[in-house]
Amino acid sequence: MDDQRQDRRWLETAVAEARRGLAEGGLPIGAALYGADGTLLGQGRNRRVQDGDPSTHAETAAFRAAGRRRSYRGTTMVTTLSPCWYCSGLVRQFEISRVVIGEAETFHGGHDWLAEHGVEVVLLDDPECVAMMRDFTAEHPALWNEDIGDE
Amino acid sequence: MDDQRQDRRWLETAVAEARRGLAEGGLPIGAALYGADGTLLGQGRNRRVQDGDPSTHAETAAFRAAGRRRSYRGTTMVTTLSPCWYCSGLVRQFEISRVVIGEAETFHGGHDWLAEHGVEVVLLDDPECVAMMRDFTAEHPALWNEDIGDE
Repeated sequence: MDDQRQDRRWLETAVAEARRGLAEGGLPIGAALYGADGTLLGQGRNRRVQDGDPSTHAETAAFRAAGRRRSYRGTTMVTTLSPCWYCSGLVRQFEISRVVIGEAETFHGGHDWLAEHGVEVVLLDDPECVAMMRDFTAEHPALWNEDIGDE
Repeated sequence: MDDQRQDRRWLETAVAEARRGLAEGGLPIGAALYGADGTLLGQGRNRRVQDGDPSTHAETAAFRAAGRRRSYRGTTMVTTLSPCWYCSGLVRQFEISRVVIGEAETFHGGHDWLAEHGVEVVLLDDPECVAMMRDFTAEHPALWNEDIGDE
């Protein structure tokens, strides 16, 4: 399987998490962490609304679900939305090798900064990811602003 | 009370969390988030060992404990140790106004980057914070490396 087909398949895991979050009344953002050998290490979704927890973004949820590890070499963080500074910092600190992003149209986070620091960044421009966020932010602008600390 | 006395008093909250973490067998790093009016909003400690949770650094624990908020304007994140990229990203994304740091001698994280982006950074060079981390990293180097993703 070539890389792009694999990345699109992995994105499906993150999209399924985003859909679950939306169904729960939460922000439709999902993520998954894959190992160098293609093993799914962890997956999760934003839980601000569900748990009243501002610290659980999709990427931090997937990272937590993957548990304690000595190394993130060769791992890929797949996320439905461009990672904010908080989640970009996570990727940089733990030297996650790749980031696959569903979309960066509704929000442009820190992925250029990650690319500058040696992370391989793949932007898939996925229409379903764009539509989920566009609809959600139109319906719940205050919730979205709260999630990214934007007054 | 002048700012520096207040910052040193606030640091005590973070140091108490770090000591608790150490007593639990965890990494001795604590943090607290204070509001613009001096209210303690949340406090916490690194929980990698205690909860097997790599995503809970001291700063993210304090941030989570503060719960959902619309704005972090005027807040101060007090931490016993210079914030890593993950925790620096948290501060930048949520526009936390100030960061008070116990020490940056045993680990130099992203606080210069925060200062460049308008965050007020105060470094207290606290001897107890230095001693806790120096002793811990000497005794448990693998655990410390794991906590910052350093192979």
